[in-house]
Amino acid sequence: MITGDQYRARLRKLKPNLFMGGKPIDRFDPKIEGGMNVMAMTYDFAFDPGFKDVGVATSHLTGERINRFTHIHQSMEDLFNKQKMTRLYSQEVGGCIQRCMGIDSLNALSVTTWDADQKYGTKYNENFINFMKRVQSEDLSLVCAQTDVKGNRPARPHEQKDPDLYVRIVERREDGIVVNGAKAHNSCSAYVDEIVAIPTRNMTAEEGDWAVAFSVPSDCEGVTLINSSYAPTPRKKLKAPFNKIGMSHSITVFDHVFVPWDRVFLAGETDIAGKLALLFALYHRHSYTGCKAAVSEIFTGATALAAEYNGIARAQHVRHKLADMIQVVDLIYSAGIAAAVNSQRSGSGTQIPDSNYCNAGRMLAGEAIYDEYEALAAIAGGLVATLPPEEDFYDEMTGPYLEKYIMRNPDISAENQHRAFRMFQDMMASAWGGHKLVDYLHGGGSPVIEKVAIYRDHNIEHSKDIARKLAGINIDKDCKNIDRESHAWL
Amino acid sequence: MITGDQYRARLRKLKPNLFMGGKPIDRFDPKIEGGMNVMAMTYDFAFDPGFKDVGVATSHLTGERINRFTHIHQSMEDLFNKQKMTRLYSQEVGGCIQRCMGIDSLNALSVTTWDADQKYGTKYNENFINFMKRVQSEDLSLVCAQTDVKGNRPARPHEQKDPDLYVRIVERREDGIVVNGAKAHNSCSAYVDEIVAIPTRNMTAEEGDWAVAFSVPSDCEGVTLINSSYAPTPRKKLKAPFNKIGMSHSITVFDHVFVPWDRVFLAGETDIAGKLALLFALYHRHSYTGCKAAVSEIFTGATALAAEYNGIARAQHVRHKLADMIQVVDLIYSAGIAAAVNSQRSGSGTQIPDSNYCNAGRMLAGEAIYDEYEALAAIAGGLVATLPPEEDFYDEMTGPYLEKYIMRNPDISAENQHRAFRMFQDMMASAWGGHKLVDYLHGGGSPVIEKVAIYRDHNIEHSKDIARKLAGINIDKDCKNIDRESHAWL
Amino acid sequence: MITGDQYRARLRKLKPNLFMGGKPIDRFDPKIEGGMNVMAMTYDFAFDPGFKDVGVATSHLTGERINRFTHIHQSMEDLFNKQKMTRLYSQEVGGCIQRCMGIDSLNALSVTTWDADQKYGTKYNENFINFMKRVQSEDLSLVCAQTDVKGNRPARPHEQKDPDLYVRIVERREDGIVVNGAKAHNSCSAYVDEIVAIPTRNMTAEEGDWAVAFSVPSDCEGVTLINSSYAPTPRKKLKAPFNKIGMSHSITVFDHVFVPWDRVFLAGETDIAGKLALLFALYHRHSYTGCKAAVSEIFTGATALAAEYNGIARAQHVRHKLADMIQVVDLIYSAGIAAAVNSQRSGSGTQIPDSNYCNAGRMLAGEAIYDEYEALAAIAGGLVATLPPEEDFYDEMTGPYLEKYIMRNPDISAENQHRAFRMFQDMMASAWGGHKLVDYLHGGGSPVIEKVAIYRDHNIEHSKDIARKLAGINIDKDCKNIDRESHAWL
Amino acid sequence: MITGDQYRARLRKLKPNLFMGGKPIDRFDPKIEGGMNVMAMTYDFAFDPGFKDVGVATSHLTGERINRFTHIHQSMEDLFNKQKMTRLYSQEVGGCIQRCMGIDSLNALSVTTWDADQKYGTKYNENFINFMKRVQSEDLSLVCAQTDVKGNRPARPHEQKDPDLYVRIVERREDGIVVNGAKAHNSCSAYVDEIVAIPTRNMTAEEGDWAVAFSVPSDCEGVTLINSSYAPTPRKKLKAPFNKIGMSHSITVFDHVFVPWDRVFLAGETDIAGKLALLFALYHRHSYTGCKAAVSEIFTGATALAAEYNGIARAQHVRHKLADMIQVVDLIYSAGIAAAVNSQRSGSGTQIPDSNYCNAGRMLAGEAIYDEYEALAAIAGGLVATLPPEEDFYDEMTGPYLEKYIMRNPDISAENQHRAFRMFQDMMASAWGGHKLVDYLHGGGSPVIEKVAIYRDHNIEHSKDIARKLAGINIDKDCKNIDRESHAWL
Repeated sequence: MITGDQYRARLRKLKPNLFMGGKPIDRFDPKIEGGMNVMAMTYDFAFDPGFKDVGVATSHLTGERINRFTHIHQSMEDLFNKQKMTRLYSQEVGGCIQRCMGIDSLNALSVTTWDADQKYGTKYNENFINFMKRVQSEDLSLVCAQTDVKGNRPARPHEQKDPDLYVRIVERREDGIVVNGAKAHNSCSAYVDEIVAIPTRNMTAEEGDWAVAFSVPSDCEGVTLINSSYAPTPRKKLKAPFNKIGMSHSITVFDHVFVPWDRVFLAGETDIAGKLALLFALYHRHSYTGCKAAVSEIFTGATALAAEYNGIARAQHVRHKLADMIQVVDLIYSAGIAAAVNSQRSGSGTQIPDSNYCNAGRMLAGEAIYDEYEALAAIAGGLVATLPPEEDFYDEMTGPYLEKYIMRNPDISAENQHRAFRMFQDMMASAWGGHKLVDYLHGGGSPVIEKVAIYRDHNIEHSKDIARKLAGINIDKDCKNIDRESHAWL
Repeated sequence: MITGDQYRARLRKLKPNLFMGGKPIDRFDPKIEGGMNVMAMTYDFAFDPGFKDVGVATSHLTGERINRFTHIHQSMEDLFNKQKMTRLYSQEVGGCIQRCMGIDSLNALSVTTWDADQKYGTKYNENFINFMKRVQSEDLSLVCAQTDVKGNRPARPHEQKDPDLYVRIVERREDGIVVNGAKAHNSCSAYVDEIVAIPTRNMTAEEGDWAVAFSVPSDCEGVTLINSSYAPTPRKKLKAPFNKIGMSHSITVFDHVFVPWDRVFLAGETDIAGKLALLFALYHRHSYTGCKAAVSEIFTGATALAAEYNGIARAQHVRHKLADMIQVVDLIYSAGIAAAVNSQRSGSGTQIPDSNYCNAGRMLAGEAIYDEYEALAAIAGGLVATLPPEEDFYDEMTGPYLEKYIMRNPDISAENQHRAFRMFQDMMASAWGGHKLVDYLHGGGSPVIEKVAIYRDHNIEHSKDIARKLAGINIDKDCKNIDRESHAWL
Repeated sequence: MITGDQYRARLRKLKPNLFMGGKPIDRFDPKIEGGMNVMAMTYDFAFDPGFKDVGVATSHLTGERINRFTHIHQSMEDLFNKQKMTRLYSQEVGGCIQRCMGIDSLNALSVTTWDADQKYGTKYNENFINFMKRVQSEDLSLVCAQTDVKGNRPARPHEQKDPDLYVRIVERREDGIVVNGAKAHNSCSAYVDEIVAIPTRNMTAEEGDWAVAFSVPSDCEGVTLINSSYAPTPRKKLKAPFNKIGMSHSITVFDHVFVPWDRVFLAGETDIAGKLALLFALYHRHSYTGCKAAVSEIFTGATALAAEYNGIARAQHVRHKLADMIQVVDLIYSAGIAAAVNSQRSGSGTQIPDSNYCNAGRMLAGEAIYDEYEALAAIAGGLVATLPPEEDFYDEMTGPYLEKYIMRNPDISAENQHRAFRMFQDMMASAWGGHKLVDYLHGGGSPVIEKVAIYRDHNIEHSKDIARKLAGINIDKDCKNIDRESHAWL
Repeated sequence: MITGDQYRARLRKLKPNLFMGGKPIDRFDPKIEGGMNVMAMTYDFAFDPGFKDVGVATSHLTGERINRFTHIHQSMEDLFNKQKMTRLYSQEVGGCIQRCMGIDSLNALSVTTWDADQKYGTKYNENFINFMKRVQSEDLSLVCAQTDVKGNRPARPHEQKDPDLYVRIVERREDGIVVNGAKAHNSCSAYVDEIVAIPTRNMTAEEGDWAVAFSVPSDCEGVTLINSSYAPTPRKKLKAPFNKIGMSHSITVFDHVFVPWDRVFLAGETDIAGKLALLFALYHRHSYTGCKAAVSEIFTGATALAAEYNGIARAQHVRHKLADMIQVVDLIYSAGIAAAVNSQRSGSGTQIPDSNYCNAGRMLAGEAIYDEYEALAAIAGGLVATLPPEEDFYDEMTGPYLEKYIMRNPDISAENQHRAFRMFQDMMASAWGGHKLVDYLHGGGSPVIEKVAIYRDHNIEHSKDIARKLAGINIDKDCKNIDRESHAWL
């Protein structure tokens, strides 16, 4: 295990391939340092005694103590601990912990590389195990590049006018493959060691070139990161933990990137592509039952704080609204617990959470965020939108006026009032807040995708049979041929 | 363990004390037999190999195999099994399994009688253990009488104009106590062996007479059951499992009822009253995460069946709606799982589920039922409301018309169409359906009560401290004295 | 104008063609008299000075004073008055006023018969005007039979295996037409003078036989009414206005019914069929902005009364919920007002309300009813579901117990408590309540149908152009050929 | 009437009293020019033939043609026109039209100054009429400063520790009054001619000093504007109308400001204060039924455009969602129409819209905005959150990659794709978007305030009497003394 500083030191050695605002920028540019701060914390938390039960695991490959973000889950308890770690860390940093894409893609690959080898006699799992040993020993940070840019949505990958609109193999060589294309919404790519690319969907028989998974260093030749970044408005004087964070997303372009065979985890076995795509999504939605429970609790706590500062904490409608918010926290988290309780062991030995519960929880999480913004905005009030800039509180002309007129409850200091409403503004009425509202909806899969998955994975015929039986309808003789589900509904 | 027939045979021996429609009625009156049918099934299911893992437990008192409905939960697995049993049985009978009030009150008493004895040197637990041994060996059916009629709601028990508006001790004798009052909404009392009475709320120091819990035979002298009953419309020809069920509720009047000391479980220790009230509610809400998951799945299956029969099963809005319904099933059930995973062992050895998760799940269950009715009504269509009576389908003048004009999908028989829509009508557009819609809201505690409990039990200060910390507010120095929560908010 | 008694007297002369429960029944059978009572009130209200401004109109055909339920709207004020009349009457009888189907179908026919004559040189409008004169002078009660039984929903009328699944012309004779088929959900047909049949949807060129509209006496030869009926539970002692009402629906079978030409309003002009179907729906949805505003206000008032009797009228969550309910009342009603303000005069001179506003209001009305049931159930409490039968309150054994234990607020009499909760039970936890919940959803068109209509009727390209313009996209050059709307989406 | 350029020229003459970011800034600072652009458009639109029927009115004081934003409504038609103007203009500029606070406060003052004079023999209305003549002839821009900073919310104005927390008269002189205090959320104050201050709430007898209304030039001595400003991210190359707008809010400090008597409209008549506060709110909520209908339609159009560009415009869930959004547009707008139809003429001759309908519409508008954000975010997809900065599209290294990989529907140009998603980002995932989401909730009054008003203004006793009558409860004899409403519930 390494520290945050060691992680940063390693990033310093990466070659420049990062662009933002129409020009190349440094990985340590202040505009993106917030995200790097969060990633660094995932290293330091592993040494924090407060997190010792959740942040560290024992490698099943080497028996070494490792950062849990590099661990392959071996049991239900591992799933409990990963969910708990994700929640505790997210609540500590004030939101997305950013490193889960790595662990989630690794776990998915641990299953599918094994499956592929069993079926096709390939060596993907050997590649993967060797890669994992390095990931664990060097405590690498990884990002998963999954979402292709997808072009014309109603068309499949091989039907696109431009075949690069899904990442694909353009050349197979003796020493490796050459890939071309781009991955969108590639969060954190600006400050990780490795980029793990996997398919975004199922592939048909003619789409072997698009059934590809691999890992490359983030500064690999041919990789270009076209970045956007967001962070709470930087503070000049009123420093706060919430303002140390940030987030980046890139369109990660693979322009004829060479990947040696030992970093290839899938290259043509089309029936594995969809399974890999779904498995990553599954692990990632399980992660959401941890991080989004934290985010929902942060909004709950902020709303309760706003009510206290505004003097309306005893109003019944405030308490009812807070109870609604707590209910959401508990339901999201319980879905993750139920997914672990109902988890299964794959052929590779990796523990796989139940997909129904993960989807139910992630769907609720995505839907609830708009209510949470509304609750905090409603109870904090309009000041969130109209608070003058921080500097005006320190100007000698305007500062005294603001100190005088921000006062609410006379027992709470003007500074604390300022601190609280400044953070509420950062959380919502800011570029960060606006960006996160979209991010919380779509990150890890939009609610409509979980809706599709919930219907697909649920045994609706079983539910119908319960109804048929109660109605006295002979199940075997009822017309079942028409309208039986094809599950190809979007 | 006894069978359903043995249970019925025992009921035949009860003395008459049941009234309905302005006159005494027999316990085997056809109007109430539906509920008795359900109760009988809880006896027969215990012998059904299909339920063998869930329906039977081993008594921790005697080591005997017992019906799980008489078991005191000893572990997380017991809680899992009770939730699962409740769901499977409820799905089998088409709704409320009716016997959970017994098991839930027994588990609550197992904890509080032990607590009271520890604190006050009373013998309630000894009474209780002896009673339990009989419950288990005779496989008794029980109901819990909790909800007092409550009179003027803003007034406390001892402030009521009429002190009987909460059940109370009117005399303490050497051989026992005499109680007076009435319990409302007392479901199933018409067809059980024993009535277990417990307090409905916390009691203050001056309310010792109202802090009372005991068990009496359901035909005990002085007990009068003023009953209301509901059942799906009886069928003449189109017999179906859904039409064998029913439900009764009584206002159970205790008119100077004598209870011997060995059936008394609380008599004056006011600080225990509230705990007992909450614990029963907690176990009962945990039961709801099982039964209401079943009810929600029945509505889901019925809605899917309606879509299939109407030929619209592939419509996207139908599938999205079904996915929403499945999500609710999964979230309700996962709340119960999480409550078991986070359960704790009480001093008495009884396992207590986590209250936050139980409340979150029960609250969702109560809120969702209106959506479920709406979904089935919307997708089944107006025929649910306008289906002519069953007899018209068998009349020689009208029958052929109805057979001709009910046809939808030509591959599904007219009889099956009839069966399905008849059940949908029974489920909703009937006295049974109207009654259940209110019952599903309030049974086991209304959503607003869970809302209160969720806010009360959640550590909102902890949530606020998360927010304070992120905002850079010194937690120790922030004004905490004002508006700190008293938790006495309703 | 005639009185309710005169209306009843006329009904007595009808020939028997009514069936229910497997046998013929009389039109004055107690099971269906509730609906007839409501219809009779629409006659008596016209003489009631309290309604004089809304219940009576001046015929544009004869200049006579007529019951507004026989009037063809000539102006925006007529639409205002019809909406207001519908609301006031509905609030007086406690729900559906039942006679609106007549006026709504007449207004629709006044437009389409004129249109057809203009285009095809037919004489439908002459037929219609003559019919109207009789309707007005004799003050006839009418019902509209629109909804065909529809068979296999994905198939069109002419594609059904059985061509009768939509009402059709089976023979065209010199003196008239012969029709066959059945109309479903035909409310009130049991107690009206005339049945007006119109198409349920648009028709294609090959569906001329299904493009048919006509009026026949309700006891016409070949017409069979297979009925279902609902009413609040009859009271023995506790008489109340709410218990005088009821409602019937029939499957109205036309078995080779002969219709003379002067009662035919459409017979083959397929392009008029869809317009007629939509126009009736439009007028009927406009009626809903009146009656459903009344129903929503009744639920609001009942909920407020429940809160008062339970002593919780000052609780903030109660007041917030009541405000939500009032908002719905006001929005539904305002949609009808806006539809009148934006109404247009048709070629025939009839005033047509705006369809967008009518659909927006009706959709809200249909969706809100589940919330309204939930609100009343939540605030009234479980007694709605468990109230013992009326007779138990008058029995000498149980009556005193119930009088004692129903007491809440000591300043409100036990009888009034009883009256209020008895009505809440009738409104919800009864066959009437269950039936109405489905009826309120689908009657006049289900919310999903309005959703379709709202999208279809709204100029979405205009909305997109607003967005395009703001984004700086040249509207004329943006690709508009793909994905432009065909509006044939269900 | 003057033009936008003349308006700007006049602003140039204002003395500097504007602060932002810790320093004085110029009124023409680029950071705030967006708001000024909008205000200027309200001048130019009055000359635009496309708006001629709505943008210009005839002064009832002078008979001159005036900009409708300076008109006192004389009729229902004036209210229709003002609502329509507000909607059309808002849709043209892409949101808030900013000048409505002026017209709304003027209309409120026209009523209350007349009322005060009638009751107290004051000369406020004469002052007001003279002021109005100047407003109309010079076509002044005004802002209303209503919301006091309010300090400790549970305390009334005169109970605050610091009496300045509500604006108050600190000195009454022969030539005028001196006021002290601050108004929060004072939108547009940075670029208007005059600031009209009115009370924020009702006042009690001891609060005469706080019952004050007046108008001062925005650069009046003693007035300091501490400003915050928001605007869509400035564009370098991809210019679009949406990016010309912006908005400012100030804390407007009145530090011993002298107001001559002829600009005073209230000074001590406490019973008028609350009426003035509510009347301004009422006119402003009526304005919201216009502007928010426009905003909702912009979101609807943007969502439909996103669906078209993403190739999913035919998906049923997209169309259903669009229909939901259109329904909201129509309901909001219809509430304003109904308010005009039910408007009343005040003693002063000013037409006052109905408050129930205004509140119902504004409440819906405030609640719906979160759904609207969610709908657009859900259907547009994650690119809204992760779109790289504009400049990257024009860089020679990254531009070609982005042009290649943004392509979706091949028939739509990359530039149009870019334009659309850039605007969606500006609308939501930006400081502007985050700020507006809070602003749309609270601007013009938060939904919870309308909820309070709806309950207060509705005759709930009338609703209860409808229920009582149906239940057969004698209205006169039912206990009405307890729990009758005091209307003092928050």
